[in-house]
Amino acid sequence: MVKVTFRPQNITVDVPRGSTIYEASLKAGVDVGGICGGVGKCGKCRVRVIEGSVSEPTDTERSILGEEVKNGIRLACQTRILGDVVVYVASKGALKFAILGYEPKVELKPAVRVVKVRRSKVTLTTPHASTLESIEIPLGLDVTINLNVLRKLGQPLPDEVYLLLYSYGGVREVYDVLCNGRRVYGLAVDVGTSKVAVYIVDLVSGETVVAEAFENPQVVYGGDVVSRISYAMEYGVQELQKSIINSLNRFLKRICESRGINLNDIVDVVVVGNSVMHHIFLGVNPRKIGCSPYELAVRKPLTVRASELKLNVNPHARVYLPPLVRGFIGSDSLMGVLVLDLAFRKGTYLFIDIGTNTEVYIARNGRVIAASTASGPVFEGGHIKCGMRAGDGAIDHVRIDSETLEPEISIIGGTSAKGICGSGVIDVVAEMLKTGIIDYTGKFRVTDHPRIRRGSDGYEYIIVRKGEFGAERDIVLTLKDIREIQKAKAAVQAAFRILSGKLGITRRDIDRVYIAGSFGFYLNPESAITIGLLPEVPLDKITLVGNTAGSGARILLKNIDWRVKVEKLYERVEYVELAAERVFHKVFIDSIYFPSGNVSEYPETVKKIKYPKTA
Amino acid sequence: MVKVTFRPQNITVDVPRGSTIYEASLKAGVDVGGICGGVGKCGKCRVRVIEGSVSEPTDTERSILGEEVKNGIRLACQTRILGDVVVYVASKGALKFAILGYEPKVELKPAVRVVKVRRSKVTLTTPHASTLESIEIPLGLDVTINLNVLRKLGQPLPDEVYLLLYSYGGVREVYDVLCNGRRVYGLAVDVGTSKVAVYIVDLVSGETVVAEAFENPQVVYGGDVVSRISYAMEYGVQELQKSIINSLNRFLKRICESRGINLNDIVDVVVVGNSVMHHIFLGVNPRKIGCSPYELAVRKPLTVRASELKLNVNPHARVYLPPLVRGFIGSDSLMGVLVLDLAFRKGTYLFIDIGTNTEVYIARNGRVIAASTASGPVFEGGHIKCGMRAGDGAIDHVRIDSETLEPEISIIGGTSAKGICGSGVIDVVAEMLKTGIIDYTGKFRVTDHPRIRRGSDGYEYIIVRKGEFGAERDIVLTLKDIREIQKAKAAVQAAFRILSGKLGITRRDIDRVYIAGSFGFYLNPESAITIGLLPEVPLDKITLVGNTAGSGARILLKNIDWRVKVEKLYERVEYVELAAERVFHKVFIDSIYFPSGNVSEYPETVKKIKYPKTA
Ligand code: FES
Ligand code: FES
Repeated sequence: MVKVTFRPQNITVDVPRGSTIYEASLKAGVDVGGICGGVGKCGKCRVRVIEGSVSEPTDTERSILGEEVKNGIRLACQTRILGDVVVYVASKGALKFAILGYEPKVELKPAVRVVKVRRSKVTLTTPHASTLESIEIPLGLDVTINLNVLRKLGQPLPDEVYLLLYSYGGVREVYDVLCNGRRVYGLAVDVGTSKVAVYIVDLVSGETVVAEAFENPQVVYGGDVVSRISYAMEYGVQELQKSIINSLNRFLKRICESRGINLNDIVDVVVVGNSVMHHIFLGVNPRKIGCSPYELAVRKPLTVRASELKLNVNPHARVYLPPLVRGFIGSDSLMGVLVLDLAFRKGTYLFIDIGTNTEVYIARNGRVIAASTASGPVFEGGHIKCGMRAGDGAIDHVRIDSETLEPEISIIGGTSAKGICGSGVIDVVAEMLKTGIIDYTGKFRVTDHPRIRRGSDGYEYIIVRKGEFGAERDIVLTLKDIREIQKAKAAVQAAFRILSGKLGITRRDIDRVYIAGSFGFYLNPESAITIGLLPEVPLDKITLVGNTAGSGARILLKNIDWRVKVEKLYERVEYVELAAERVFHKVFIDSIYFPSGNVSEYPETVKKIKYPKTA
Repeated sequence: MVKVTFRPQNITVDVPRGSTIYEASLKAGVDVGGICGGVGKCGKCRVRVIEGSVSEPTDTERSILGEEVKNGIRLACQTRILGDVVVYVASKGALKFAILGYEPKVELKPAVRVVKVRRSKVTLTTPHASTLESIEIPLGLDVTINLNVLRKLGQPLPDEVYLLLYSYGGVREVYDVLCNGRRVYGLAVDVGTSKVAVYIVDLVSGETVVAEAFENPQVVYGGDVVSRISYAMEYGVQELQKSIINSLNRFLKRICESRGINLNDIVDVVVVGNSVMHHIFLGVNPRKIGCSPYELAVRKPLTVRASELKLNVNPHARVYLPPLVRGFIGSDSLMGVLVLDLAFRKGTYLFIDIGTNTEVYIARNGRVIAASTASGPVFEGGHIKCGMRAGDGAIDHVRIDSETLEPEISIIGGTSAKGICGSGVIDVVAEMLKTGIIDYTGKFRVTDHPRIRRGSDGYEYIIVRKGEFGAERDIVLTLKDIREIQKAKAAVQAAFRILSGKLGITRRDIDRVYIAGSFGFYLNPESAITIGLLPEVPLDKITLVGNTAGSGARILLKNIDWRVKVEKLYERVEYVELAAERVFHKVFIDSIYFPSGNVSEYPETVKKIKYPKTA
């Protein structure tokens, strides 16, 4: 038997020597993406062998993969395992989890349904006298109708009709009267500052039939919410809104055409996002969110006609926007609290949605407290010399040998190395701490090593040399990068320290830590604890939940009882404005140390890192 | 002292010889339309002296009236009374009553109000975080908002704002957020088959500032509802709808420009009409109303955005359409039941809305029973050889001297005689019965008289000879005309007989008879009883209420509690489908006689008319 470890899932299984990686993946429950059943036809089971001994590439592989074989890319179904191996998988299935996120099973109870009705005929002597009543009576409901339906009621109708019926919040509206049944879909959109995740849910089966993402076209106006606000203040919000709506329409058109979905059959929409994206999506200027007291125009749940927003779906469809909590806590992170049921469960839970702004929630026996902290762009690869977003060519995991101080890396997509993404940066810093290359203050302690040199930004560690892994330049982590990381993780740690202080809890009280966001999917939790981004809790208490903003939006499509839930939830979240907390600055400064100035809260971590005695 | 009789009001007063007609009109409470206080400046107190001796025209009159003086037109304030006179008044004031109708005083409680709000500021530590909440909190209401308002909330706002707030039926929507208060108006429209009455009500003062009417442009597609239905069945309803909406928009534009009203300040709309006009106004094909079981598309109350109907008022305004009762009982006649409070009063009331279709309601101690009967166009002058609508030049009142059999007439507008309108026809027939010219079967009994001759339609009575009263032809009433009248009045009488039979009442139980419709305004009730159109009740129990469809629509604008009332009312009206009543045809035939086959119900009338002993 040999050991096979799949990354980034970090799942290890034992299989007989000579098994294919494909067979091992089945045992591990890891989706490598193949769709031909492992016979070397589809070419979709691409993996990258990082370590260990495997069979030579077959002719099939050479013909399908071409140049890629040279970079260690293999077809899982063609590659036999000869010894312990580490395999990197970045298949659609794995990425899909990042987009899909954790989603609890819910009963199907959508806002819009197709209801079959046998009409109760009007005669000269029936008390009812109208076609509408002939439908309302068997339905047992008093409904509202739009002009389109009204006009259809004026025409002869069969005895049996199908209603497209919307019911939520006291409104029962017949969107359409049809002569035949129909498949209907819901659209869920998570409008992120940089990525827009789009889901299409079959409202009859409950199945998610589309889960894709595209880049928010507003990035040309600036990478973060603050730059979007500035743009809106100066030039108005119309252009920003138009750009997101137009590209969403284009995306929908393309995706629906390719999947054979009629846009008119998309009859319900849920849109989540941070507060600024929420306002921009509606064409509401977010200017007041930009400065204290960070006032929203609106935060309660909204329902707007898709046609008013010029969204090309069924013109009667409503767009449901769940509530926001505060200027910097939007409906995106609130979805995590919703799907994880944090507000209605016994126990103590920490939920962190990491991004340019990081939202930190602590829920304890039904009480929910939250803060937002400006962690900056480092976790998305920003403000880092060789930083890049998590995507093909990004170094997402790094290990440094404690003896040789040589790195071992994995690259997303298994292509040539282009840069380092957030999870990679955190890994490098954690490894540099554990190997003593830097100390708890972030200072370089080892300077005399081939991997370490002085550059324009102070000392730097060379992760990949130009030429290695196809890199076109040296990929390094500089002292300046480390300073950026320190500020970012200090912001998150300080938020946790202040919130837990308010609730009177410590890390020991925490039953579970949930990390959301697609960044969170790549994160190595151990490294995150080592640098002090997360509190020190047993690793098995940490769960990566992926994009819960998206899964929450899908649940709101599937079951309207969850809309009731989130509408109760948002006003229960106690918001803590960190800027208004006197101790914040002090705690922030104290959190800049690795893992923390408050070392007693990191007892195990302190043992692992080479901590100078003088600390 | 001399006697002055004002027509069509039929009010007689005694004044000192030498008084002006204007002075007499003040005593009689008749509005002759003058606005200069009776000093001969405004020229608006035009009347027509029909009988009796008055002073010669003054120079003022000659200069203001010009040619008109020759036709007996005078200025009331310039004309001194020298003996008993009969004066015809068709002033704006009189006509206005016909358009306005009876309107009870109601408290002002409109659906749309301008509400001043001092905002509750958002700070870093307030539990509320949005501009919307800064308004909702002092308002004490949870409101819905449209995108336009939402976008305004994104902008800086003063501490004090004015909301344009709609509240009805559980919906509370802010239409607009304004920096200043504003005058707002409501629009009430009574869409008749031939006339469209338009009212603009100041929603702050409750005053009706516009009350005008224009011809329904759909008359080119046919004069009655049946022809409109046929047209819609063949060519669809779009064109019909467009024509009414477009002409309403043109009318509003013109009237609002002349009165200095901003169309955008019309923030609420109520539209009433018969069922076919109601459907056409909404663009709903009325085809199913056209044949048994006369099915409506919808009859319950509706609220539609003015913008969806392309009505040029405030784009957020809603159009409220009160409920219909049945295919041939629309919201127009139901308004009469509403404003007269028939359904909620003790007593027994007969309410008749006379037109091409005549709706008959009997209310008894809270029970309301109704029928619609096809009385045809005779009451509007149709199917009558010399018939015309009530309007300038129409003979509206006729008396026949019992000795000489010579007629005495009045003409609407005091111009030259052009034809005879419904009330005139009824008068002529009643007078012919009383003078014995015709008998209870409608047959001519007197044939040898200069006023009576045989024409192409059988015998005919010459009311006006060519040349008299400026007539360009003989104006006659023929035997065929009498037959038409008989069918029409029989339809109404039969409806009354069947409804009263169902309730087990007779004419003696009736506390009051209300006659609605602008036709009703010209009607001589005594003549209507004589021919058997109305049951024989004491004349002082008959009240002409004018256009209650219009006054009801205005009340629904002024006070939303009345909307609740009418929404309870319509389902309580017990509809009797005459066509489904076995006895209907028999009763109808029996009602063709003058005044009725059931003579015991017309004891006083029978005495007045020369009834052949053989009856
Ligand atoms: S599974 Fe299809 S090529 Fe490997
Ligand atoms: S009242 Fe003005 S002219 Fe007679």
